[in-house]
Amino acid sequence: MIIYERDIEVCYSPALFQYHNPQDKIVVIIDVLRASSVICTALAHGVKEIIPVANVDDAFTYRDKGYLIGAERSGIKVEGADIDNSPFSYMDANLVNKKIALTTTNGTQAINIAKEKNTVVIGCFLNYKVLCNWLILEQKDILILCAGWKNKYNLEDTFCAGAIVDYLTNYSNFSTSCDSAISAKNMYLIAANSLYDFLCNSSHFQRLQKQNKLDDIKYCLSFDKTNVVPILINNKLIDALKK
Amino acid sequence: MIIYERDIEVCYSPALFQYHNPQDKIVVIIDVLRASSVICTALAHGVKEIIPVANVDDAFTYRDKGYLIGAERSGIKVEGADIDNSPFSYMDANLVNKKIALTTTNGTQAINIAKEKNTVVIGCFLNYKVLCNWLILEQKDILILCAGWKNKYNLEDTFCAGAIVDYLTNYSNFSTSCDSAISAKNMYLIAANSLYDFLCNSSHFQRLQKQNKLDDIKYCLSFDKTNVVPILINNKLIDALKK
Repeated sequence: MIIYERDIEVCYSPALFQYHNPQDKIVVIIDVLRASSVICTALAHGVKEIIPVANVDDAFTYRDKGYLIGAERSGIKVEGADIDNSPFSYMDANLVNKKIALTTTNGTQAINIAKEKNTVVIGCFLNYKVLCNWLILEQKDILILCAGWKNKYNLEDTFCAGAIVDYLTNYSNFSTSCDSAISAKNMYLIAANSLYDFLCNSSHFQRLQKQNKLDDIKYCLSFDKTNVVPILINNKLIDALKK
Repeated sequence: MIIYERDIEVCYSPALFQYHNPQDKIVVIIDVLRASSVICTALAHGVKEIIPVANVDDAFTYRDKGYLIGAERSGIKVEGADIDNSPFSYMDANLVNKKIALTTTNGTQAINIAKEKNTVVIGCFLNYKVLCNWLILEQKDILILCAGWKNKYNLEDTFCAGAIVDYLTNYSNFSTSCDSAISAKNMYLIAANSLYDFLCNSSHFQRLQKQNKLDDIKYCLSFDKTNVVPILINNKLIDALKK
């Protein structure tokens, strides 16, 4: 059996997605603070399915279909929503087997940009190793899409993308000549032992700090707290390991 | 006299420029390989002025107005142009006091995106220190726009942007909470002593290597070979130190 090298690319913003070629690749959506972390936490704690919705008004239309509404903009819960965008809010026994429509500032937009024709999965530090091992088994090229902050580059998504590039190029037959992937891996290796301290200077850290969400940040920067690989099937995020 | 902190941001792609706020800032355009390096080299070797043109057809309309045409796409000289996009082609006594209309794959597009309402200057390794010192004296906030490669992130422009962030935050009253600027500075500090070796894995290096342009790369990665600050005035690039 010949093992071919597989390619891994990183895209730093949904606004740059159109310049990458996602054809026949698995697209991994990263929004560390906090949509990806919320989705992993929710599925790990028993939520049945999550519909990612780009637009707030569209999210609320799911209430009549039996969905709870998770909705956030610029870090704040949208008025009238059932749940905010803190991963701790999804560790709730009342949510077991519930269905949720989720809309967030960056992450759910990124999912919706990528979902046409591609296999879309969700990545963050919380499902780091289980995701990497699942990607290795899938035998496809990979494009990691960082959600960023309102289409701008951000550090926390870069670190997570870099961690995935690091794992896959070290432990499987992946290689890359993608400048963003090379850069993300190097940035991760600089910061790996002090992600929290390194992010103290970053824009989104300061934004969440003002909103007293440092516990959210600490949790979202923890490795391997959940054992799920959220995958988008028929516009619903479910756990690929249970499907 | 109170000295206020000045802000420095980095934008990794012309496609992300709209998400930054360039108002009242100096915009520094970086296209290390090779438009910025060509522009600095040309002005340093006596070219009178350069008109940056986004479109090939538009560039050729300047021939009747007495301009020579420098035109490149994807690394190759455009048929019918007078000059290619190698900095060595602009070290030519025949070009002294000549006017040039220049169009390139990435750099001249970036200039044209940024030029509305902003002060636009050109940066690269070749004019690193003279540019940084000029920026310090101008007393404005700064937005560095990396030309990238066809709107994708690239390493060489990131290194140069990071070198400028490093200089200005070390030697003047600049600070930043821009994630791209923090990342660019760190990437530069990783690679500073081995820019050429580090770039060997990058996408554009491999592209130019196939075209036998390694001498161009080595020259474009040299610090402080020219003493010019190209500035856009009335749509013409001239040396700010001579205006």
